[in-house]
Amino acid sequence: MDNSYEVRNDRLFKLPNSPELVRNTIRIKSKLIRNGLAEAIGTFILVFIGTSVNAQFLLPRAAINTWIQIAVGWGFAIMIAIASVARISGAHLNPAISILFFSMGALDIASLFVYIIFQHIGAFFGAAATYIVYRDAINYYDGGLRAIAGSNGTAGIFATYPQPFLSALTGYYDQVAGTGLLAFCILMITDEPNKVPFAAQPVLIGISLLVIGCGFGWNCGFPLNPARDLGPRLFTYFVYGTKVFAHPWNYWFLVPIIGPILGALIGGWFYILLIGSHIPDEKISEEIETRK
Amino acid sequence: MDNSYEVRNDRLFKLPNSPELVRNTIRIKSKLIRNGLAEAIGTFILVFIGTSVNAQFLLPRAAINTWIQIAVGWGFAIMIAIASVARISGAHLNPAISILFFSMGALDIASLFVYIIFQHIGAFFGAAATYIVYRDAINYYDGGLRAIAGSNGTAGIFATYPQPFLSALTGYYDQVAGTGLLAFCILMITDEPNKVPFAAQPVLIGISLLVIGCGFGWNCGFPLNPARDLGPRLFTYFVYGTKVFAHPWNYWFLVPIIGPILGALIGGWFYILLIGSHIPDEKISEEIETRK
Amino acid sequence: MDNSYEVRNDRLFKLPNSPELVRNTIRIKSKLIRNGLAEAIGTFILVFIGTSVNAQFLLPRAAINTWIQIAVGWGFAIMIAIASVARISGAHLNPAISILFFSMGALDIASLFVYIIFQHIGAFFGAAATYIVYRDAINYYDGGLRAIAGSNGTAGIFATYPQPFLSALTGYYDQVAGTGLLAFCILMITDEPNKVPFAAQPVLIGISLLVIGCGFGWNCGFPLNPARDLGPRLFTYFVYGTKVFAHPWNYWFLVPIIGPILGALIGGWFYILLIGSHIPDEKISEEIETRK
Amino acid sequence: MDNSYEVRNDRLFKLPNSPELVRNTIRIKSKLIRNGLAEAIGTFILVFIGTSVNAQFLLPRAAINTWIQIAVGWGFAIMIAIASVARISGAHLNPAISILFFSMGALDIASLFVYIIFQHIGAFFGAAATYIVYRDAINYYDGGLRAIAGSNGTAGIFATYPQPFLSALTGYYDQVAGTGLLAFCILMITDEPNKVPFAAQPVLIGISLLVIGCGFGWNCGFPLNPARDLGPRLFTYFVYGTKVFAHPWNYWFLVPIIGPILGALIGGWFYILLIGSHIPDEKISEEIETRK
Repeated sequence: MDNSYEVRNDRLFKLPNSPELVRNTIRIKSKLIRNGLAEAIGTFILVFIGTSVNAQFLLPRAAINTWIQIAVGWGFAIMIAIASVARISGAHLNPAISILFFSMGALDIASLFVYIIFQHIGAFFGAAATYIVYRDAINYYDGGLRAIAGSNGTAGIFATYPQPFLSALTGYYDQVAGTGLLAFCILMITDEPNKVPFAAQPVLIGISLLVIGCGFGWNCGFPLNPARDLGPRLFTYFVYGTKVFAHPWNYWFLVPIIGPILGALIGGWFYILLIGSHIPDEKISEEIETRK
Repeated sequence: MDNSYEVRNDRLFKLPNSPELVRNTIRIKSKLIRNGLAEAIGTFILVFIGTSVNAQFLLPRAAINTWIQIAVGWGFAIMIAIASVARISGAHLNPAISILFFSMGALDIASLFVYIIFQHIGAFFGAAATYIVYRDAINYYDGGLRAIAGSNGTAGIFATYPQPFLSALTGYYDQVAGTGLLAFCILMITDEPNKVPFAAQPVLIGISLLVIGCGFGWNCGFPLNPARDLGPRLFTYFVYGTKVFAHPWNYWFLVPIIGPILGALIGGWFYILLIGSHIPDEKISEEIETRK
Repeated sequence: MDNSYEVRNDRLFKLPNSPELVRNTIRIKSKLIRNGLAEAIGTFILVFIGTSVNAQFLLPRAAINTWIQIAVGWGFAIMIAIASVARISGAHLNPAISILFFSMGALDIASLFVYIIFQHIGAFFGAAATYIVYRDAINYYDGGLRAIAGSNGTAGIFATYPQPFLSALTGYYDQVAGTGLLAFCILMITDEPNKVPFAAQPVLIGISLLVIGCGFGWNCGFPLNPARDLGPRLFTYFVYGTKVFAHPWNYWFLVPIIGPILGALIGGWFYILLIGSHIPDEKISEEIETRK
Repeated sequence: MDNSYEVRNDRLFKLPNSPELVRNTIRIKSKLIRNGLAEAIGTFILVFIGTSVNAQFLLPRAAINTWIQIAVGWGFAIMIAIASVARISGAHLNPAISILFFSMGALDIASLFVYIIFQHIGAFFGAAATYIVYRDAINYYDGGLRAIAGSNGTAGIFATYPQPFLSALTGYYDQVAGTGLLAFCILMITDEPNKVPFAAQPVLIGISLLVIGCGFGWNCGFPLNPARDLGPRLFTYFVYGTKVFAHPWNYWFLVPIIGPILGALIGGWFYILLIGSHIPDEKISEEIETRK
């Protein structure tokens, strides 16, 4: 009778029967495909949670929601998404970050293309999954007549659109600033000399996105990620029509693609050249002493 | 005079006199009963705090509350509940998670039944405890005439009810999505290769529930847990009558039972097959180096 | 020129010149007085920050504030207060917790009296410090005519008062429930077998208070601590007059004194008897393996 | 084909090609200049994020924002800023903190001047960067007619101004209290005997600022930092004119300069004399035992 479950070795579960066997059977042999799949799943989770947070914010038309919820929701969505696949693909989940790593020599060209393609695939299906969960609520909100913007507009749940006052130039500034800060934070948090524990890195990156959402969300909704914006926009093309690429003006949709790429390169290299290269060496003896 | 209290060894207290003696006297010998009791207490804490958070959100009829409070409240309620009993029973606190672990061969059939029964008992009394604390406030809110829904309805404090626009099908989608993400996160956070410290696991699971509450709370209040919903619903049967099983339509109450079970199985096995099995092995030497 | 500041050994500062000398000169030799002083300072910080959070919530008469701010403010105030003096006195900061530890044999009777007295002293001056910072704002709010309650009432910034609908009995339930959960969490978080790192313990206790504030704040403002309530109430006696002990009814002020003491004893011993005594022993070999 | 990217050794990236070479080439040899640059960058990040959070709070004129966002935004902005440069300059980012460290003998006089100057430079450009990102939104808000205060006033995004009811004396109290608590927390969190892990220190300092923002933000917006206030005020001189130094009365701008310096000295030495000097020594054997 008493062969019941017991917590062993701080591990809550083991794969059934012969985990090695299962693992060896289903494990994908190609690193490239494995990493691509991981990027797709991570970006799927990011966009599924994130756009659902947007839906819950917009659709109640009520005062129970506040902007902090958007920032918290996206911040911890990226935390979960990164933690999920960081051990496999490094969890870029963002073409702008992949391009930054490519520019640093930390990603080869074949991987770069695979990463970017799979990130878009994941984002596309993340938006689709949110649509399925919130289809009833969207119908209730707009009476079944899909609109991009206006009092019944819901396309902003999926892709981002700028405030009416925003010029294209300030849109680019905004995206360069937000993504620059994000890339800066990602390199700073993962840079070895800063010794942030691996398990804490997704949490700190999540908090970074949270605070960027508190400061850079008003102009155009902090996309900061070409795949997070273009993937859902492609999905909304099938629901809202071609106007999603022309609202509020033609080529707006390029801002959250080009802006984040520029921003990640600027913010990332800003970190490398002005911070990362200047951290003093620690002598081994000090190293040991600090671990005391 | 100076035999006063002093902090010793980072331990703030010791059990009185002869802790081993006390421990050996009262310690429950049967693992099964010990684990069941732990599940009941953990689920009691989760539901007591969580439904009190709901009460504080609903009853003031005022703008001081925002939805983020629900997400934060439930998120950190599960953190506390898991941390409390994780060392004893593993802290499932959710029949859907127990069924997932059973499907993985990580829980035997006898334990499965014991876990599920005690989870419901804990949830029932958690709702009762909230009712005692907020009985005065509920009387003030509804003038003593208990109503399930409407402007004086308070049954939603305890069990979940869907938005008026929600179809049963979308209700299932919603519960599969939310519980799927939760199960995915639980396996990811507790999976050994991800090396999340034991003490940090309840915090990260709490944050996961928090963010799921930000994204999947609007349709039907993210029950995500058959015991968390059915236990309190049984309690409200004694307060609000049989209508709690038939509002807003017959068999709604099955959605937060069946949906979460399906969701946990889908989300959990999604993790195992698509993520957990593909994490690269770390060589021992690397392992040592990373601990540096 | 280059003898400038450099970060050494993860330590940002050292006491000037000969720290040992300074330390030996000013260090209080009596453990009892040292611990009492630490309790006073910790409770001062808790109440100074906490009542200032209350002031900032009440005085703007505006929608910029939400209840979550109260919960977050008090939660992290106790985090700071505990972290400040935990290495000296153990950071009870609450007579109910000190009485619980006394009942467990973890605090001697002399220390118990010293702790409780100094906790009240700290709380008194914490409220006074808040009054100094917010005197102008209170004058602006009430036109200089101090009132306990009503549209110009401000005494609730310092001590707690119940909602109009609250019976004394439910007030006691509420305080037993809230303080019981708090004491349960404190023992659980600091209990050695749960192996929460010392530096993380104040954070988790803070989050526990945060979530208790989200669920048990509506009835009477979650005092949960006789000193936190009585100390500021004594201070307000000099500002608002004797009515602070008779509003809204005679002897209300006893509820946040007696309730928390009962609650801490119930919640604490609930943990010890039903959880702490049943955590399985870890064998040394497992212990080592989990550290891997 | 399979030479693709793989996560190695918990490190997500390496500097390209020969990092040592790059590092040796661009590394700034003078510690003083390196530290000054680090202080400028850290303060730039703090003020850029923080004033953008202010902009997002003010400019929407809508109920989607709540004060908690200001507290969270500034709290995690300082977390990011400190984490970025703590390994280089110690991340004071605040002349009041530098003066406190100078008073403790932990910073030499040349470094003190360099730190303070570069902190102001960073803060100036941080405000300028926010202005560029939010120029369109400010134009939309005020119709292009810049005003310091009133219904179209926007200067409060950058520098702080007091509530109309605030006397100069209470302004000083407020700044001494807020900065005193901040300096107290910084020393407590970084003091070696408290053994807070290096990577966790910026997080806890950030949470400290967050909670100070919840309790001491209403009187005059918790500047708590001469450079954070004077740097942006100098920038706004070029946008709003000389009135920024005379609103709402002459010499208000001195309050967030003098108040924080007094506060940091009082709060810091309060910690050293009343807490830091009284932490009991741990014997080596205990030390080892606690690590168990």
